Amino acid sequence: MAMRHHDLTDPAAAETAGPVTGEALAGYLRAQATEFLRALRLHRETGGWGNGAEGSADAARALRRSARRITGSLHTYRPLLDADWSEEIRPELAWLSGTLAMEHAYEARLERLLTALQRLSGATPVPDRAESLPGAPATAHTTLTTGARATGTTRAPRTTATAPATPATTATAASATTTAPAPPAHPAASPDRGNLTVGAAKAGALLERQLTLARTRAHSTALQALGSSRFHAVADKVALLASEVPLTAGAATTDLRPLAAAAEERLTDAVAALPLVTAGHPYNAEALIHGLSPDPAPHPQDAPWHQVRLLLRLHRYAREVLHAGPEPVEVRLLQAGQALDRHRDASEAAAAAAQAARTPRIAPATAYALGVLHADQRHEVEAARYAFQRCWQKDRKERAGTG
Amino acid sequence: MAMRHHDLTDPAAAETAGPVTGEALAGYLRAQATEFLRALRLHRETGGWGNGAEGSADAARALRRSARRITGSLHTYRPLLDADWSEEIRPELAWLSGTLAMEHAYEARLERLLTALQRLSGATPVPDRAESLPGAPATAHTTLTTGARATGTTRAPRTTATAPATPATTATAASATTTAPAPPAHPAASPDRGNLTVGAAKAGALLERQLTLARTRAHSTALQALGSSRFHAVADKVALLASEVPLTAGAATTDLRPLAAAAEERLTDAVAALPLVTAGHPYNAEALIHGLSPDPAPHPQDAPWHQVRLLLRLHRYAREVLHAGPEPVEVRLLQAGQALDRHRDASEAAAAAAQAARTPRIAPATAYALGVLHADQRHEVEAARYAFQRCWQKDRKERAGTG
Repeated sequence: MAMRHHDLTDPAAAETAGPVTGEALAGYLRAQATEFLRALRLHRETGGWGNGAEGSADAARALRRSARRITGSLHTYRPLLDADWSEEIRPELAWLSGTLAMEHAYEARLERLLTALQRLSGATPVPDRAESLPGAPATAHTTLTTGARATGTTRAPRTTATAPATPATTATAASATTTAPAPPAHPAASPDRGNLTVGAAKAGALLERQLTLARTRAHSTALQALGSSRFHAVADKVALLASEVPLTAGAATTDLRPLAAAAEERLTDAVAALPLVTAGHPYNAEALIHGLSPDPAPHPQDAPWHQVRLLLRLHRYAREVLHAGPEPVEVRLLQAGQALDRHRDASEAAAAAAQAARTPRIAPATAYALGVLHADQRHEVEAARYAFQRCWQKDRKERAGTG
Repeated sequence: MAMRHHDLTDPAAAETAGPVTGEALAGYLRAQATEFLRALRLHRETGGWGNGAEGSADAARALRRSARRITGSLHTYRPLLDADWSEEIRPELAWLSGTLAMEHAYEARLERLLTALQRLSGATPVPDRAESLPGAPATAHTTLTTGARATGTTRAPRTTATAPATPATTATAASATTTAPAPPAHPAASPDRGNLTVGAAKAGALLERQLTLARTRAHSTALQALGSSRFHAVADKVALLASEVPLTAGAATTDLRPLAAAAEERLTDAVAALPLVTAGHPYNAEALIHGLSPDPAPHPQDAPWHQVRLLLRLHRYAREVLHAGPEPVEVRLLQAGQALDRHRDASEAAAAAAQAARTPRIAPATAYALGVLHADQRHEVEAARYAFQRCWQKDRKERAGTG
């Protein structure tokens, strides 16, 4: 796949493209507002959040997607927009997309953890991550978990035993993986093996219970939010934005590119502060320091990576505004973003496993499985950092070569 | 550091060096037998195994070292040696070095696990493994554990609290690590953090108990072995070997190099059968499949790597025979061997953590810590495979370039 790099600070690129002004920003914001309204209509047509249909999940995703883009553009191109209006709508959109994101986040976290438990139990062949590295999303194999969960929750990690009884699950597994079904390297009959397999099953059931509860609560919160007058006020504002963007007087002649370049610079600076040298050395064992911390809060060492994830997103949205037409494929940028998404997901999944281990009165076997799971997800964190580092350095090198 | 590769199958190298015959083998075996007798004398002078002095540990190491070399040479150069004699002494020497190795193995395993527990508790800065990769031994930081263990066993993972009271430990830590002492990223006062820190401490105490018991038993077994008539019979045979090597009639004119080349070929074939492509992709998550297996036996996937470790050693000893003088430095070969040693050590440490987790009536927090520890060591296994792969491919490339 050919890659094109549009270095915003490149004067040659600027010359050919000509200046990009407030009108481009207005066009982008109108388009995103229209997307938002379309998603809202889709949401209402599919019956809202009440029935949990696939369509309403798509609608929620689309709502969040446009809300994030509007908020991001308002942030990056702040000087071109009416300040009062901007200050008013930005936190409201952030509240909305944050609220809508929670339900999906809990669902994805549970899927990630149950998939990992299955992998750790040898119940599924490991997806060939080697081929998709670096930067590919690690969620390609989650369909299996969804299938297994539909058939019976606590048995999910013991697919070797239950799979023959559930052809649908088996079919999903076959299509979701690149190799043949997992050979049972250890015969299931060995009596010594019962204890911790039960542990994995119990850990899975515990996580399912806790994360399903959290997800249900998030669902209620999202429902409440969407029925609230606060939401209706945001929706009205976005409806206005779809027709009229409150630009400042000078916006029509203001070049957007320095603002986009500033967003990129904030990203570059934040990346420069990351421990990329360490991250580039595989198996540096950095992510599992404090692995025995019972603190359910995310590790402090993860925060700068989460920050870069947000800045990368802002940079991407800022670029979208500049390229009003179809955005040229920026494979590396997308891959870097996917690596950081994976970093965030694994970080939060690890925290969820650690938190579950603090549940009173759990069996030692359950706690053991949660410990293995926690460490596994922290290594996913480390793997994601490595993947990001690879994307980033490659991108830098290619820019240096072609720019 | 300059590297010289002596490809045994390289005809040019053979021409310059001239043929190497049975006399070289005899010289090597005599030298190793002499080493064995010297180590035995040292062992007796230092008071034997009864007092556990440092000197006797050195003596045991030297005994094993020469025993392994004699056994290895007898294996590789079998056709040049009296068959009956060879068949008789080989299993006896293998028994001896195996028996003598156990005590040290349990001691090293405990050190490895306690060090890992400290690292996972954030009690020590992580050693800068990134700089020593690939192939460097992972045991550079074990002195810290030894220091901490001398001061109080169950508190070892909580060095942040105990270190100020034990200046010796702190000094060891400072000299054993490349960075400043670990900053307490999470304040120890946080009440939520107590539970699993206790878990790490309890896990450490449990492992210490179990592995110290195993070590004590291994010590007794070694003592018994060294006092047995079976041992005296081996020692007598080695004493004879020091003066007279039972070569076959044709040995004086038999070229050793084809036999050494065959040993190398066995190694190369075994390496070719390893999943090196997967191992070369960092974070492939292969080593932790069956991570939730309660089976204390080593993972079946580790076996081919252990086998390569043995074949690499045989290859190295076979080369020593050919280069009767000081052996040219084969950095890559040594590094590859160290990676495989690390692979074996981590594999066995992970199994010990899993086995400890099966102790009845342990607390959930202990089991959780052992789960994290198990996963950590399985990732060490994966890291060692990666390091080996890097050494090996680099070596191949360099040979292809220079050979």
